[in-house]
Amino acid sequence: MAERQFNFSAGPGVLPESVLTEIASELPVYKDIGTSILEISHRSAPYTELAESAKSSLRQLLGMGDDWHILFLQGGASLQFYQVPLNFLPKGGSADYIVTGSWAKKAHKEALLVGDARVAASGEADSFSHIPARATWNLNPDAAYLHYTSNNTIFGTQFKDVPDVSVPLVCDASSDFLSGPIRMEGFGLIYAGAQKNMGPAGVTVVLIRDEFLTKRNGGLPTMLDYGTHIDKLFNTPPVFAVYAVEKVLRWLIGLGGLSAIQTINARKAAKLYSAIDISSFYRGTARPDSRSHMNVCFRLPDEALEKRFIVEAAAAGLQSLKGHRSAGGIRASLYNACPEEAVDALISFMREFERTNG
Amino acid sequence: MAERQFNFSAGPGVLPESVLTEIASELPVYKDIGTSILEISHRSAPYTELAESAKSSLRQLLGMGDDWHILFLQGGASLQFYQVPLNFLPKGGSADYIVTGSWAKKAHKEALLVGDARVAASGEADSFSHIPARATWNLNPDAAYLHYTSNNTIFGTQFKDVPDVSVPLVCDASSDFLSGPIRMEGFGLIYAGAQKNMGPAGVTVVLIRDEFLTKRNGGLPTMLDYGTHIDKLFNTPPVFAVYAVEKVLRWLIGLGGLSAIQTINARKAAKLYSAIDISSFYRGTARPDSRSHMNVCFRLPDEALEKRFIVEAAAAGLQSLKGHRSAGGIRASLYNACPEEAVDALISFMREFERTNG
Repeated sequence: MAERQFNFSAGPGVLPESVLTEIASELPVYKDIGTSILEISHRSAPYTELAESAKSSLRQLLGMGDDWHILFLQGGASLQFYQVPLNFLPKGGSADYIVTGSWAKKAHKEALLVGDARVAASGEADSFSHIPARATWNLNPDAAYLHYTSNNTIFGTQFKDVPDVSVPLVCDASSDFLSGPIRMEGFGLIYAGAQKNMGPAGVTVVLIRDEFLTKRNGGLPTMLDYGTHIDKLFNTPPVFAVYAVEKVLRWLIGLGGLSAIQTINARKAAKLYSAIDISSFYRGTARPDSRSHMNVCFRLPDEALEKRFIVEAAAAGLQSLKGHRSAGGIRASLYNACPEEAVDALISFMREFERTNG
Repeated sequence: MAERQFNFSAGPGVLPESVLTEIASELPVYKDIGTSILEISHRSAPYTELAESAKSSLRQLLGMGDDWHILFLQGGASLQFYQVPLNFLPKGGSADYIVTGSWAKKAHKEALLVGDARVAASGEADSFSHIPARATWNLNPDAAYLHYTSNNTIFGTQFKDVPDVSVPLVCDASSDFLSGPIRMEGFGLIYAGAQKNMGPAGVTVVLIRDEFLTKRNGGLPTMLDYGTHIDKLFNTPPVFAVYAVEKVLRWLIGLGGLSAIQTINARKAAKLYSAIDISSFYRGTARPDSRSHMNVCFRLPDEALEKRFIVEAAAAGLQSLKGHRSAGGIRASLYNACPEEAVDALISFMREFERTNG
């Protein structure tokens, strides 16, 4: 079998190897059920147990009480951009959006189709290089919710704290979900596509506080009404993705949970930022106070060097380091399942590349 | 490794064993790419090649020309129930629905949220035991489209021909898609959840004819506008499900394509219906002219016997024969990947069960 390389993909991102080999070992027959997990009713005991186990692990990891509902939906964060305001932006009401990057802009754009979605702050004038300071936000105290994107994959920025506001928070946590503990108190709803820290593409976790749920609009299309998915398993879920997520969550608990992974993630990111900062060859693009622990974005002296860096890194077994097409440069995504050795190998490669090209 | 049993699940349904073992062999590393298929960008070459291969196989199997677009979406048929009218039921216009079962009713219900969705025919008064005869349909010649459900999993009925109408057809083909050739001429749009004949749960194939697409409404939410997904890969697709579908499609081509599988499916269904018909112990529930080749529904003399039948069949390695909770009785789903030996084994079991309980 071909060897696994170090994978810095921004998403779908790297998964724990033990999860992948466990999946392989459960094909074509899962445990003693005589068939694979892909071929049974989503109302059967084996799937129900899996889904319940995944929910239970999430509750344990995040310390969520019974006032939180957990949904495994489809359509990605992109569908949530519309589903959130459809449910929670009331007729004649308003919602606030903090625009910190491309995904936040998309979320705001969909909300405008539903109603009055205000931009309470935006980092666009500064090329989204940092999270706008809390003191500059222009908040509406009557907003139905404040929407923000906790981590911005393209620009490599991240909120360092949960925003301190008086209205319910709604968070697109896709790219840093489960990378550390979350203080859940201020939130009404948190959503996250699985394909960064939690599993393969194909499932979106939505956490909704019961009190927030009761405020949703009426007369909604069945599939887009969060309430539909809370009462019961309404339609066929993305079985494989939930099955894989269940394994990743157990892996994470085995590592020691969110505080443990936060420490590891902080150490990985600090190492890489430090390697960038001590060099005049590499230049980080995010402002230091807003630097993401998930996506480390940096530039080289020119684009020709960046191109060579990406090609030679790939040849050295360091994959998917190309920055997003809209931002250019280099992006190293250091999600939970990215091992510390991968970061060490990248830093060694960077030093050698600077030595021969600097 | 535990042995595989015969699996008659109505969905998610049985998959070809060769597909499952191939998936296992490609974990944790896919080909020579140094990572699994689950951990790379959906804009990378390996995923793009897979998705193109799946589309090419679909074009080949269905004989689709360039005027057809192929989309791999999320949310299942249940989201299509809303997305179809949202796109194609114009303000002030109307659409016709043929209601032949629970899923067709749900599709009609969502369309009513959008506009004037007429019931052109319904089998509900006869407990959905047959497809209403074409002569009884009350059609609107100005309808934007006629929606029908080609196969009804719960009641075991199936359209024997493509409806002959003057307006564009929209079909929920979820439960008999790719079970035989489709005469594509009259259709504007066909959608199908993968989890019956095509792959695991988590992806919905939508086929749209270009001419029909141009008639869609404006101002739609981005993710729910079919046009969004035609111009480009808009957001992260359900990678694993598409990857598995690609393998199932190649398996189907290897079997000889849709005419070949249709012959096999017809033979499997004929065998089982014949075993039911020659017995006075078993009683088919669908009217013979509407019998599905995919889901064979039948009853035993009483519910206690049905319960025992299901338990003893499972013990004999014949899985998932319980009818839908809303219909009761026995349901044997004979999707493409259900081998003929499974049907033979079921028939043997039925004879023996009748001998000892009849």
